[in-house]
Amino acid sequence: MRTIRTAVLGASGFSGGELVRLLEGHPSFAVRYLGAASSAGSALGAVHPHLSRMAAAELLPLDPAAIAAETDLVFSALPNGAAAALVPAMLEAGTTVIDLSGDHRLPADDYPAWYGFEHPSPAWLDKAVYGLPELFGDRLRGARLVASPGCFATPVILGCAPLLAAGLIGSSTIHVDGKTGVSGAGRGPSEATSFASTEESIRPYRVPGHQHTPEMERGLELATGRTPRVLFAPHLVPAVRGVVTTCYARLEEGVTTEALTEALAAAYAGRAFVRVLEPGGMVDAKRTRGTNMIELQALADPRSGTAVIVGAIDNLIKGAAGQAIQNANLVHGLDEATALPTTAVYP
Amino acid sequence: MRTIRTAVLGASGFSGGELVRLLEGHPSFAVRYLGAASSAGSALGAVHPHLSRMAAAELLPLDPAAIAAETDLVFSALPNGAAAALVPAMLEAGTTVIDLSGDHRLPADDYPAWYGFEHPSPAWLDKAVYGLPELFGDRLRGARLVASPGCFATPVILGCAPLLAAGLIGSSTIHVDGKTGVSGAGRGPSEATSFASTEESIRPYRVPGHQHTPEMERGLELATGRTPRVLFAPHLVPAVRGVVTTCYARLEEGVTTEALTEALAAAYAGRAFVRVLEPGGMVDAKRTRGTNMIELQALADPRSGTAVIVGAIDNLIKGAAGQAIQNANLVHGLDEATALPTTAVYP
Amino acid sequence: MRTIRTAVLGASGFSGGELVRLLEGHPSFAVRYLGAASSAGSALGAVHPHLSRMAAAELLPLDPAAIAAETDLVFSALPNGAAAALVPAMLEAGTTVIDLSGDHRLPADDYPAWYGFEHPSPAWLDKAVYGLPELFGDRLRGARLVASPGCFATPVILGCAPLLAAGLIGSSTIHVDGKTGVSGAGRGPSEATSFASTEESIRPYRVPGHQHTPEMERGLELATGRTPRVLFAPHLVPAVRGVVTTCYARLEEGVTTEALTEALAAAYAGRAFVRVLEPGGMVDAKRTRGTNMIELQALADPRSGTAVIVGAIDNLIKGAAGQAIQNANLVHGLDEATALPTTAVYP
Amino acid sequence: MRTIRTAVLGASGFSGGELVRLLEGHPSFAVRYLGAASSAGSALGAVHPHLSRMAAAELLPLDPAAIAAETDLVFSALPNGAAAALVPAMLEAGTTVIDLSGDHRLPADDYPAWYGFEHPSPAWLDKAVYGLPELFGDRLRGARLVASPGCFATPVILGCAPLLAAGLIGSSTIHVDGKTGVSGAGRGPSEATSFASTEESIRPYRVPGHQHTPEMERGLELATGRTPRVLFAPHLVPAVRGVVTTCYARLEEGVTTEALTEALAAAYAGRAFVRVLEPGGMVDAKRTRGTNMIELQALADPRSGTAVIVGAIDNLIKGAAGQAIQNANLVHGLDEATALPTTAVYP
Repeated sequence: MRTIRTAVLGASGFSGGELVRLLEGHPSFAVRYLGAASSAGSALGAVHPHLSRMAAAELLPLDPAAIAAETDLVFSALPNGAAAALVPAMLEAGTTVIDLSGDHRLPADDYPAWYGFEHPSPAWLDKAVYGLPELFGDRLRGARLVASPGCFATPVILGCAPLLAAGLIGSSTIHVDGKTGVSGAGRGPSEATSFASTEESIRPYRVPGHQHTPEMERGLELATGRTPRVLFAPHLVPAVRGVVTTCYARLEEGVTTEALTEALAAAYAGRAFVRVLEPGGMVDAKRTRGTNMIELQALADPRSGTAVIVGAIDNLIKGAAGQAIQNANLVHGLDEATALPTTAVYP
Repeated sequence: MRTIRTAVLGASGFSGGELVRLLEGHPSFAVRYLGAASSAGSALGAVHPHLSRMAAAELLPLDPAAIAAETDLVFSALPNGAAAALVPAMLEAGTTVIDLSGDHRLPADDYPAWYGFEHPSPAWLDKAVYGLPELFGDRLRGARLVASPGCFATPVILGCAPLLAAGLIGSSTIHVDGKTGVSGAGRGPSEATSFASTEESIRPYRVPGHQHTPEMERGLELATGRTPRVLFAPHLVPAVRGVVTTCYARLEEGVTTEALTEALAAAYAGRAFVRVLEPGGMVDAKRTRGTNMIELQALADPRSGTAVIVGAIDNLIKGAAGQAIQNANLVHGLDEATALPTTAVYP
Repeated sequence: MRTIRTAVLGASGFSGGELVRLLEGHPSFAVRYLGAASSAGSALGAVHPHLSRMAAAELLPLDPAAIAAETDLVFSALPNGAAAALVPAMLEAGTTVIDLSGDHRLPADDYPAWYGFEHPSPAWLDKAVYGLPELFGDRLRGARLVASPGCFATPVILGCAPLLAAGLIGSSTIHVDGKTGVSGAGRGPSEATSFASTEESIRPYRVPGHQHTPEMERGLELATGRTPRVLFAPHLVPAVRGVVTTCYARLEEGVTTEALTEALAAAYAGRAFVRVLEPGGMVDAKRTRGTNMIELQALADPRSGTAVIVGAIDNLIKGAAGQAIQNANLVHGLDEATALPTTAVYP
Repeated sequence: MRTIRTAVLGASGFSGGELVRLLEGHPSFAVRYLGAASSAGSALGAVHPHLSRMAAAELLPLDPAAIAAETDLVFSALPNGAAAALVPAMLEAGTTVIDLSGDHRLPADDYPAWYGFEHPSPAWLDKAVYGLPELFGDRLRGARLVASPGCFATPVILGCAPLLAAGLIGSSTIHVDGKTGVSGAGRGPSEATSFASTEESIRPYRVPGHQHTPEMERGLELATGRTPRVLFAPHLVPAVRGVVTTCYARLEEGVTTEALTEALAAAYAGRAFVRVLEPGGMVDAKRTRGTNMIELQALADPRSGTAVIVGAIDNLIKGAAGQAIQNANLVHGLDEATALPTTAVYP
């Protein structure tokens, strides 16, 4: 297989570490550039002692010219805002960019309200492909800029889109309740994500107004043409990894749990990373840990006229590093499953 | 203060243990009978090694005549079904019963569908007072049988009732997303609540159909006269204690977060165990740990027309043993706060 | 009871928070001054949202003159080094000081090597009483300066001293293996104590050279006149609270587990906070959580000629705030158990 | 590569699940028989929902004749006692057996005292190779019966043997303090390993008398010819995976941390799964999670004349399933690292 010279930017963070780990096993994407902001100059082994194979590799500055000169494919795990500032120069120099941040997921008009900044490169933004491979995989081949989805948006869109498209659930307001482990908050130490604050803590945050809200709405619209309104309430629970989203939508008359389940199963038949649970089972984030899998299920409650759609992923893999690699695989015409684990390290 | 001879039934379980612990500090309720089913014959210290003060006390059989002969006040922390079978004999023998199970919370007609049995004593059921002191405290004085509320129902009813009563939220379907630690599942060992299965696990269970659903509906109707339909989806998270409920209701036109907050604050002004959070703060189950406190907050999202009402409690205290004692205090004309902690052991 | 005006310095930290919480229930020690360094100016409720009773109280600067003017008794939960700098001025102004730091536990000569500074006030250091009440309680009445012991030193000294004094174990090297939850590292956020780094982590730190090493040696010498050499290896485990120390000493010829157990039981007969486990039981830090209790046990292994002495405490209570209050109770001639919990919030 | 038909016995347990997961990626060992006791008749996916690739495979009875007829290589993850009863029949029928239990690790004479049974097949016991590949790898080629070491014994023997052999530490008593996550206790639910009992619990168990004690002594003797006496005290900490052993041995005169470190580094130079930490670093079980790695370090404390030797592994991989596969690789002349992960899923 052809070797594609690859950069990982934001290599010192959790998603960056997972990108490096997963790319160790990739037959085509060869890591040639590890970029970092404040950690530049350190060895990879100093910031990620568990990554022993490339321990001596040096983290390099975020220099777009150098990155573009040495690599063909860039995974950017930089923070929101930082990615938008850096990506255009690399694209113009000819690299392909898979952006894990939120900087290329929304129309330019949405950035001031939801992300707090004017988007610096609306022209590139228009060319970005929203990289949810199970729904938009056919747009990815040859893409230059892929916006890899947010960890909460992934299970919400994958869970609701088939049901919305089939008219099994209503397109009015969908209430989305999110639960996440602390790794979604990034690696920087804070009192909120200390062990002492987190053990035995269950708490909501940023309700309403979380920036994944418009992403969920837009993803559902892209996939179905319908335009539901989303209310999203994320909660922190005492786990490192794992996102579970529970969506509450209007159940259309006469629709059963079986019908919902069949619609999900049909939509994702043959897909490597989707496990649709039969009635009786219940999704569990722990079973997706360390993998690129998503577990989905849908339940009808005719009594209250509600459909409950639940999804579970590992936020650092299907919600970040793994999905980015899945996108890059499709951009390059490879099997989407290349180098991506499906079996959890359990328990 | 007069000594009231007190029994704790189901003393070997988690709620039973908390009843014994909290009653150690009570000036009037003196524990004279520790009842247990399969653990009868053991010393309390053998089943609860942390309860050193009464370590030598023997767990006795669940004999209604003996219990009624030796005590005036019975806290029953027996399982659903077992309580209904035992309580009438004790009531007829003259004791007052505070039932922590679900056996006296619903109309008799609801038991077959939601609890799976015909209620054995509908006459006593009609006399049971639903013991949510902040809403129904004035019905408790002198009550003979108190149905102490469920752990999930408590924050849902306390959070939504004032807003429903004030017409700030709609009375159509309310979506309730619950998160709980494993102690709510009781003390019996099972693979589902083992450490290996629970750490890093986030998962829904019993959706739809959890038996707290009709309790929430009935409690809200009792408190407000309105009859919302509830869809309830509980989730297990990796914690021992703590329940957080997040309710999604229709926000009436023009209602703000401030209006919701004021309605909650006004409803519970001066109450010992309710902390209403100002906008900006966020409830946290950890801050209620070890206490009889409830944290409440309500947030308006006019964009989606949704009110989000969040509540957090310690499920074994405000959701079980503590609220039962609070109820018994009011039955006996004592200050509701007697012997109940308000300050968490944190972190 | 006479009201003793009390200050808590370092009120924004974990031990400071526990001091305030426990003093809420004290009949004599009335908190009048909350001192803090960088948090001065904040309300107590802003730094400890769970402490709702004194939520509005302002944290004040660490001004010795003001503290001495307004209070009679000072609990100093300031960091090592900061206490030594501040305490003399308060003592000279007439207050009694209970110091929770390590600044008054060793001879002056030991500070450069073990704490990295020259002790600024060796004269006061000579007057400090080492406050391990179960061994040195009779020296506390009327003391002006009490050095409250370290969290690791407490179970080691209490566990080994009676056996050493009775000649049941040898006085040569004792190997001490410590396990602790993260709260012992204090409240400041760091990557090492983040939830992401701590869950599923078991790791030693500061081996050899931890500053509790000479404290263990000196405490044992003070208690027994014998001079064992200690090697101490602390380990971090995924818990918030809890210290367990496992000591390995030479077992004298013919000594049995029963003899060791009896020696411990006899040494602490009638003491409020010591639970000596019979052979068959095993200490558990969880059973001491939220209490001032210590669990102790000792086991003989004649096969290898080793005595294993294990102790468990809540590091923030018997290892810090609770023991400090126990010391202050004895300084003031009160029952040592005043305001100190003995029953754990379990599970 | 030639296909070797492989059986996994005890497939429903934690080690069995890990064997199946790791063998999914093995180029030669093809799983053909999944054996289980009480779970026989179930599908693999019913007992291990995360193992989706072989989900439909049926668990079969523990029938030696059937196993020997259908497979060449047997991994037995059966409990102590059960393995000894079943293994001889399979060996006599021609299969190779890698036994993960303790049933073939000791001389026959030791079984009554340490395992509580007379060994049923001492003749086979004499032929068993103790499978610690880094020390005894050259004995494995072509072995018929391999006793894969215990999780605690692995880091103790690997850590101490080179130092003992080089005369850097004394051969008198070695004190071994073990810390382990709960998965080492197996999958069967019990109150001791429930989430409610385990979170915030730190506790010793089976001190003295744990059956890994003679295994440590024998392994060290096999490797070095010296015969130290071991006192072993295991502790349970709130983790799922991870074993850390801390060994305290007599430090020979003049030996430095650098000398200890060099001896370890030299002993394991070029080995795929050993990471020796330089002074300054500290081992962490979390960095080995999901891998077959062992982290080792050794520290000198001349002050107390003690050497501290610390080792960390994932108890289910290097301490069980991974090491068993490593052994089987060497038995079959393959690279020992075949199909075994070295990079942790972190955090």
